[in-house]
Amino acid sequence: MRPHYNKVSPALLTELGAAIGEENVFTSPAALERYKTDEEADERCFAVPEAVVRPGSAQEIAAVVKLCNKYLVPITVRGGGTGLNDGAIAQEGGIVLLTERLDKILELNKEGLYLAAEAGARTLDIQNRAKEAGLLYAGDPCSAESCLIGGNLATNAGGNKAVRYGVTRHQVYGLEMVTPTGEIVTLGGPLKKCSTGYCLEQLAIGSEGTLGIITKVILKLLPLPPYKADVLAVFTEPLAAIGLVAAVNKADLAPTSLEYMDNPNVQSTAEFLHFKDVPRKEDGIYVIITLETFDEDELDRKIEQLSELCEKAGAVDVLEADERIWAMRRNCLESVRLVSKVCTTDDVVVPVDELSGMVSFVIATVAKYPFPLRINAHIGDGNIHIVLCKMELSDEEWEDNLRRFAEEVYTYAYAHGGRLAGEHGIGSKKAAVLAKFTPPGELDLMRKLKRAFDPNWILNPGKVLLLEDE
Amino acid sequence: MRPHYNKVSPALLTELGAAIGEENVFTSPAALERYKTDEEADERCFAVPEAVVRPGSAQEIAAVVKLCNKYLVPITVRGGGTGLNDGAIAQEGGIVLLTERLDKILELNKEGLYLAAEAGARTLDIQNRAKEAGLLYAGDPCSAESCLIGGNLATNAGGNKAVRYGVTRHQVYGLEMVTPTGEIVTLGGPLKKCSTGYCLEQLAIGSEGTLGIITKVILKLLPLPPYKADVLAVFTEPLAAIGLVAAVNKADLAPTSLEYMDNPNVQSTAEFLHFKDVPRKEDGIYVIITLETFDEDELDRKIEQLSELCEKAGAVDVLEADERIWAMRRNCLESVRLVSKVCTTDDVVVPVDELSGMVSFVIATVAKYPFPLRINAHIGDGNIHIVLCKMELSDEEWEDNLRRFAEEVYTYAYAHGGRLAGEHGIGSKKAAVLAKFTPPGELDLMRKLKRAFDPNWILNPGKVLLLEDE
Repeated sequence: MRPHYNKVSPALLTELGAAIGEENVFTSPAALERYKTDEEADERCFAVPEAVVRPGSAQEIAAVVKLCNKYLVPITVRGGGTGLNDGAIAQEGGIVLLTERLDKILELNKEGLYLAAEAGARTLDIQNRAKEAGLLYAGDPCSAESCLIGGNLATNAGGNKAVRYGVTRHQVYGLEMVTPTGEIVTLGGPLKKCSTGYCLEQLAIGSEGTLGIITKVILKLLPLPPYKADVLAVFTEPLAAIGLVAAVNKADLAPTSLEYMDNPNVQSTAEFLHFKDVPRKEDGIYVIITLETFDEDELDRKIEQLSELCEKAGAVDVLEADERIWAMRRNCLESVRLVSKVCTTDDVVVPVDELSGMVSFVIATVAKYPFPLRINAHIGDGNIHIVLCKMELSDEEWEDNLRRFAEEVYTYAYAHGGRLAGEHGIGSKKAAVLAKFTPPGELDLMRKLKRAFDPNWILNPGKVLLLEDE
Repeated sequence: MRPHYNKVSPALLTELGAAIGEENVFTSPAALERYKTDEEADERCFAVPEAVVRPGSAQEIAAVVKLCNKYLVPITVRGGGTGLNDGAIAQEGGIVLLTERLDKILELNKEGLYLAAEAGARTLDIQNRAKEAGLLYAGDPCSAESCLIGGNLATNAGGNKAVRYGVTRHQVYGLEMVTPTGEIVTLGGPLKKCSTGYCLEQLAIGSEGTLGIITKVILKLLPLPPYKADVLAVFTEPLAAIGLVAAVNKADLAPTSLEYMDNPNVQSTAEFLHFKDVPRKEDGIYVIITLETFDEDELDRKIEQLSELCEKAGAVDVLEADERIWAMRRNCLESVRLVSKVCTTDDVVVPVDELSGMVSFVIATVAKYPFPLRINAHIGDGNIHIVLCKMELSDEEWEDNLRRFAEEVYTYAYAHGGRLAGEHGIGSKKAAVLAKFTPPGELDLMRKLKRAFDPNWILNPGKVLLLEDE
């Protein structure tokens, strides 16, 4: 059964204004228009909300949530708006809630090795604050410059350092959130271990705002390795490049990054950034490896060992990766938009030993379809981004082909222990395929959880779990 | 409202026998007597179950759970029976379910770096299997020789390597469990990252069998560092010893272990093990530090650096820790039982920068009470075990003093960001204090979860959450 929602009423707007200040409740068409989409570029996915609110504290967020329960109006939470799966689009109408005013870094504890921040703090600012203290915050999504830490937790964001340090989930000691019924709860704490009841903070992480609105985070800090080298290994065969992963793992090199860009990505990022003479632009596949150590000799030893492994794996060139190479990696998504305004970035993850098979399958399968393929990947994690471009296809051709291609890819991934999303989350874009590919018993537990936490289904309806399911 | 339970009936026994084989359903007084307790030594906490079942597969466990829902009979799950908080005692009667027949290690995947095992596999066997393959399973509870891996997950066990590698939660990629209504679900998988719906595997870990019976685990394997040194730093002042933690953290030594034994522990373990000439037996406080590296020079450098830090922190002696020292650390609990048959081991955890304050508080506070104190601690994790002995106290004196002392300690811990249990879990022994010290909003979410997953409250009633709460 679908939950029943009401439209935003003047009475609700009055109460919202009283709770968080009229200046933080937006209803003008221009203001609402601004929040009709996030990173989504396909206009057919846009949805203009009925109102936008910008509370300034957990208390104010709790007040908004209580009011929305009272009036049965859904809330869509928006962090930095950098999500790729329509997670911040209010398809069910109602209110978009912005966390951007909760932007303070509250504490950096050098002895306890943790940092506390409000959920609207920029990830980049948190990284920089840690660095200034000689420490590392290891979460590093590719959108770090614009994303907010609360969104990183909500989607369990990954990024370029996950191969060494794990994903966002592994950087979090605790969090504060507003529950779907408007209570403020603190879950976890700056503790290295805890076995005191259910681990609700790990449940909240990755729940994409459907089980609560994260308002504060307590993050792990680590010693910052002072020595660093970026290596670019150029390959011409995808499977040779991917074969490097197992060799690196076995050699205990513990790279901080292990990134893959196929040749179409190399070409379009070089053009987008006006880099004329990048290595093997015509046919090179790039693997970028970052090594970081606490000892200079160790770094030298590892670079040497890595170079040998790259050559053994079939690299045609092994170079120092200068800043241009990382700029290219960061601009994969932006550059492809020059080729096609509408494109999709899929985010399949498989066990690392299944990655060669997965990539081979994708390359072989896409040959049957009318769109060009680009792959960039966090290969150290088994996480590949499959970028497809709409080009000049009609809406119908695009959707139909995309659906059939995705179905083939997900079927292969699940048959090999994989999942739909490694780091981008489900949002509303993948809610239907989540429902299709998740075994019924697991999906049933997710639904039970959602119903128990959010009886009126107020928070982020249609994200992660389909409304039609209920 | 308390759930309604029925007694185990002949009809249920007949159906159980048909489902899992009569030879795996025990009702003789001698068999039942064997499962009246786990590590608990206080007879007043014992409870003889009405029946004991020993299913051989997840399917059989699912059948048992379905039958117990049908007949409204509670189930208490038992792994290795090494728990310290009465987690495997069937205080509500009903059935004790043994997981010991699910004892197979199913797969060791060297390329994917994971190991799959049934929940009843011994932790030590898993550690050894990994080692034979040149790899490390980093979970290492002090009871590794007798505990089972399913119990490690259920309590989120910690142990001696958590300071470097994290606790059991951090070693788990996925698991299979039987839900409280008898469905078999697979949660997570051998994936380095995942952002595909709610992270139910992390929720199941640490839920002490109240949200499901874990039947299979998929564990992370790591490269095994080939070089190792054990250092014993002897102190005479507790706070000097604890001060070493921050120094070691800042120096990036990344120790595998960082363990603390106060002088009463040194004395009683030396006597228990008949070690005559251990260092500074009369007044020594031991800090045991294990360093492990992938490079021999690095190990030498770290030992030197560590020795300097120990001396600077006020160590009166810095030695190589031989096997006797680890034997002493492992026998803290056993040796104290020679002093007093009944004793308690508390398990408070605080942020590492709050540890000095916590230990000072415990030492100052216990002076008001009529029992001797021992402290052993995973000081690198902020996790201290406060061991108290009943000695010749009457039951009433013991209980009353214990309750008041614990109340003081927990109040201090919570005021400083700490929690009741770092690695032993809650069981039934701490369910009342969990209810008392957990903020209402958090407790309410835990209860909602339990009710949603286990409507008949069949699994491990009275563990973690009080029955009286419902």
